[in-house]
Amino acid sequence: MPHRFASVPFGNRNAEHFAHQPFGQVPWLTDGDISIFESGAILLHLGELSDALMPTDPRGRSDTTEWLFAALNSVEMASLPWSLLIFSGNKGDTPVWKLFDGFLHQHRLKHLEPVLAGREWLAGTFSVADILMADVLRLVDRFDGLADYPACRDYVARATARPSFNKAHADQMAHFAKADAA
Amino acid sequence: MPHRFASVPFGNRNAEHFAHQPFGQVPWLTDGDISIFESGAILLHLGELSDALMPTDPRGRSDTTEWLFAALNSVEMASLPWSLLIFSGNKGDTPVWKLFDGFLHQHRLKHLEPVLAGREWLAGTFSVADILMADVLRLVDRFDGLADYPACRDYVARATARPSFNKAHADQMAHFAKADAA
Repeated sequence: MPHRFASVPFGNRNAEHFAHQPFGQVPWLTDGDISIFESGAILLHLGELSDALMPTDPRGRSDTTEWLFAALNSVEMASLPWSLLIFSGNKGDTPVWKLFDGFLHQHRLKHLEPVLAGREWLAGTFSVADILMADVLRLVDRFDGLADYPACRDYVARATARPSFNKAHADQMAHFAKADAA
Repeated sequence: MPHRFASVPFGNRNAEHFAHQPFGQVPWLTDGDISIFESGAILLHLGELSDALMPTDPRGRSDTTEWLFAALNSVEMASLPWSLLIFSGNKGDTPVWKLFDGFLHQHRLKHLEPVLAGREWLAGTFSVADILMADVLRLVDRFDGLADYPACRDYVARATARPSFNKAHADQMAHFAKADAA
């Protein structure tokens, strides 16, 4: 799909930024007169535009949608506070760390592991749900959180080995480099 | 829409439970041969079945979808760890509490307040996005987290005053009472 990347300044976010993204974050997508924020909503919109990103049968669409929400609201819901504790230097032998570490491992990754051991992609064929789930797990993996989950690690490896992941990643890095140089 | 509630035992969750909900949680929805987990995915499915729950024009659908994700992945992403800290007795004068309290207030509710001050419902007319956002904010309100956000409180009051909220809430309480008595 033809598209164009653009950056916005973070330091002085203006009213137009908040009109597109009410929490002052990125990303958002504009498509004609429609402006969409939230990665999940953006990916669902893109999935509806291309059958390379979402199956077209009702069952496949429904599976893609549930796993898109699961990546965000089941897995990232547990991995984000876990990552925030690590980022902020609050990983350690404390009740709070054990609470969030257990939330991620016992309530999420332990259950995700057999799912990913049994299928190549979440909704049968590759879809926007895999773009999101692989990205959520990638951050967990960077903090060695996937050590006990070989199927999760293999899934991240499969997803990040795709030529379109590498092209998108390289394009984004080039965009950042150009913005930094400007 | 005609529907039926059913309960499942939590203590001994079986393989069928995990087949419907891989993390062993509730809820899930079955509609014909489709089984959907994740509240967001379920609500999106219901929204597509009824224009009382989601506008039918592309802009309204897209607004509903982005706010459905925002309720979960922007607001609940911050309110859930905040609530977990309160539930577990870890609210207090600590760096971790300040981290998550700031995440909820400074990065989320402060920005949601002007949005809700300016509109009755998130996507123009009432939609599944409001069902979810009101429910997420309801829990924050129960812990007095909305004290500084009158527009958020008014929004929760509007949503929970709807006859269909009261009917659904009463039906669910009656269902629980019957299950407890059985």
